[in-house]
Amino acid sequence: MSVTFPRGFRAAGTTAGMKPSGRPDLALLVADDVCSAAGLFTTNAFAAAPVGLSRRRVSRGLARAVLVNSGQANAATGAPGDRDAETTTAAVAEALGLDPDLVLACSTGVIGEPLHVIELLGAIPELVGSLSVEGGPVFAEAITTTDTKVKQAVTERGSFRVGGCAKGVGMIAPDLALATMLVFVTTDAHVAPPWIGRLASEVLEPRFESLTVDGCTSTNDTVLLLSSGAAGGDPVVPGTPGWDEVATALDEVAASIVLQLAEDAEGAGHVVLVTVTGAESAEDARAVARAVADSLLVKTAVFGGDPNPGRILQAVGASGVPFPPGSVDIRIGEVPVVVAGRVPDAYFADGGAEGARAEVEKPRVELNVSLGTGPGSSRALGVDLSYDYVRINAEYTT
Amino acid sequence: MSVTFPRGFRAAGTTAGMKPSGRPDLALLVADDVCSAAGLFTTNAFAAAPVGLSRRRVSRGLARAVLVNSGQANAATGAPGDRDAETTTAAVAEALGLDPDLVLACSTGVIGEPLHVIELLGAIPELVGSLSVEGGPVFAEAITTTDTKVKQAVTERGSFRVGGCAKGVGMIAPDLALATMLVFVTTDAHVAPPWIGRLASEVLEPRFESLTVDGCTSTNDTVLLLSSGAAGGDPVVPGTPGWDEVATALDEVAASIVLQLAEDAEGAGHVVLVTVTGAESAEDARAVARAVADSLLVKTAVFGGDPNPGRILQAVGASGVPFPPGSVDIRIGEVPVVVAGRVPDAYFADGGAEGARAEVEKPRVELNVSLGTGPGSSRALGVDLSYDYVRINAEYTT
Repeated sequence: MSVTFPRGFRAAGTTAGMKPSGRPDLALLVADDVCSAAGLFTTNAFAAAPVGLSRRRVSRGLARAVLVNSGQANAATGAPGDRDAETTTAAVAEALGLDPDLVLACSTGVIGEPLHVIELLGAIPELVGSLSVEGGPVFAEAITTTDTKVKQAVTERGSFRVGGCAKGVGMIAPDLALATMLVFVTTDAHVAPPWIGRLASEVLEPRFESLTVDGCTSTNDTVLLLSSGAAGGDPVVPGTPGWDEVATALDEVAASIVLQLAEDAEGAGHVVLVTVTGAESAEDARAVARAVADSLLVKTAVFGGDPNPGRILQAVGASGVPFPPGSVDIRIGEVPVVVAGRVPDAYFADGGAEGARAEVEKPRVELNVSLGTGPGSSRALGVDLSYDYVRINAEYTT
Repeated sequence: MSVTFPRGFRAAGTTAGMKPSGRPDLALLVADDVCSAAGLFTTNAFAAAPVGLSRRRVSRGLARAVLVNSGQANAATGAPGDRDAETTTAAVAEALGLDPDLVLACSTGVIGEPLHVIELLGAIPELVGSLSVEGGPVFAEAITTTDTKVKQAVTERGSFRVGGCAKGVGMIAPDLALATMLVFVTTDAHVAPPWIGRLASEVLEPRFESLTVDGCTSTNDTVLLLSSGAAGGDPVVPGTPGWDEVATALDEVAASIVLQLAEDAEGAGHVVLVTVTGAESAEDARAVARAVADSLLVKTAVFGGDPNPGRILQAVGASGVPFPPGSVDIRIGEVPVVVAGRVPDAYFADGGAEGARAEVEKPRVELNVSLGTGPGSSRALGVDLSYDYVRINAEYTT
């Protein structure tokens, strides 16, 4: 049921004809009443028009609807792109009788190409007419592009529910577009606007920032969190058991979605989970984890089934984070491949690499790095680099 | 003649049997007298033992010989690795009757594996015995590993000469090693120790830092500059025409070597020259140039012959450098694909991308980014990402 599993939400999806493939390309999520809302947005300097619009509108902590299109990213489209985002969300607001400032927007597709506004506007009546509490899966499917699977997750804890869905980590259009990540998480827990942003930044942000398929931050990446409060009860506030319960439920859904995104990443045969501990700070740990997960040499080694301690060590050492090399331990799964900054001599003996090799052949490869300098830790979730990645991103051109 | 083209240098190369392939794996460069010398070394925290040794010894600005081995990188080898670097350079010093502090060392090969000291020491008598002023090409060949071509360049200006050679930007050993870049530049111009370091950092460093094959900084990267002074004449000092002449000659040799390294990079079919202008500072320009040259989406687009303004724009925008998006222009060759932060509508018309497509199909693809905010400029030299890159780095495993 994804985003309509929590009470108070309806959703729909349709084919507006905005992209040549003729697949569904327009989706709408609407809450029965005004929601608490928070958003996380791309840091790309060329943030798309809908990113600017949604960031501005959600800053009050309130939202009622989200319009999502694929086909055009509406990025690098200048002032006309901003007008297109305004026009299309205004049309949704009018059809639903809402304040336009409560309608958010997400786009994904070709960068630079003008939004196909005529097709989009033409599809709004049907889209609004088909809104349904059963619409979660249709919404989740309509937001996908080259995804091979629909990504959704739900959880229920006592009185409240959380649901989510996502698209991306695949090239969206065959010719010009980027791997944009769009994530929608809903809950019927009662979280007031002052606190919804904190849940987004403390729970969702670390999860989604840990994901790196190709190190490329899209112009359109967006994570939206909406709370309908339809589960009833007192507002959930920090420092209470209820708060922890909501945070845990959100994290469970986010973790599931992140893993689904990684597993469906372009050409990916292995998910690579990099865990860094013992850093001076969480920021240092994160920089090391990202350096390892984004290393082309590590990614191709995993694709080739090669444990290769030297490549992991190279990436750690080139991360820019300072540490004494002699304090670093690296394990693949539980197999040590670097101990106190050195590759053990036994690794180079006959058969000495076999344990590590078995670990790197698993669908989920765990690379554990301990810097030995402090309490900071972080994780990054990456994928291998395969022939299919190159094929998808190079050959699928116009 | 590479490094022995300038007067005052002899060189040699041999097969010591340190690597399984049985190809030449040991090389020696010796000056007739003490040289002014400077080095540029990897910033990787796991810098190899020979990097530490050479950095320490060259810090006085003097050197007489350089011993280079392939097969083992002597990185992540701990205190025994440091001793091995001392032992082997001491053996060269003894065979030549030199102060050991004047003997530098470079290694490239498998990270973590102990240096094959017995084979190395056994080959020193023959290596020293075959030193010759004709030895430049043999030296240049003996330092190569998976390079498909020997990389060397020379120039002569009036009274002085410059020569250089390099290896790398290919995987060194099929199983464990990294793309290490080793560069040796010699001149018989008379440059005193206080100034040789300035030539290295002002002329050689920007050239070699502009090269990025896969964004991975090796544990062993080294650039060494030796000046014999054998051309005679007054010492060359900054602020004189002689200084500018030497700097220009060094840059000519360095530029040639950098281009040769890029053209022979793993799996590379296209060299990508990214030029960034109009940044607030050279550092900002450099960050943007590197972000574009290292972008997997840009690299695969070039491989696929796809001009793709969106991918270039995405990389510029995700570089972390601040700028107003509306001031950015991007050209592929001379063809504008982003004007004032927007992809021109004409690009999406029938045939609108053909001019840009022709540019991206050239062997040398020029991506020109103007940020429009200041006087800072920089260049990065990268390559495309091909099936062969993945094959070389994934399939060639033990």
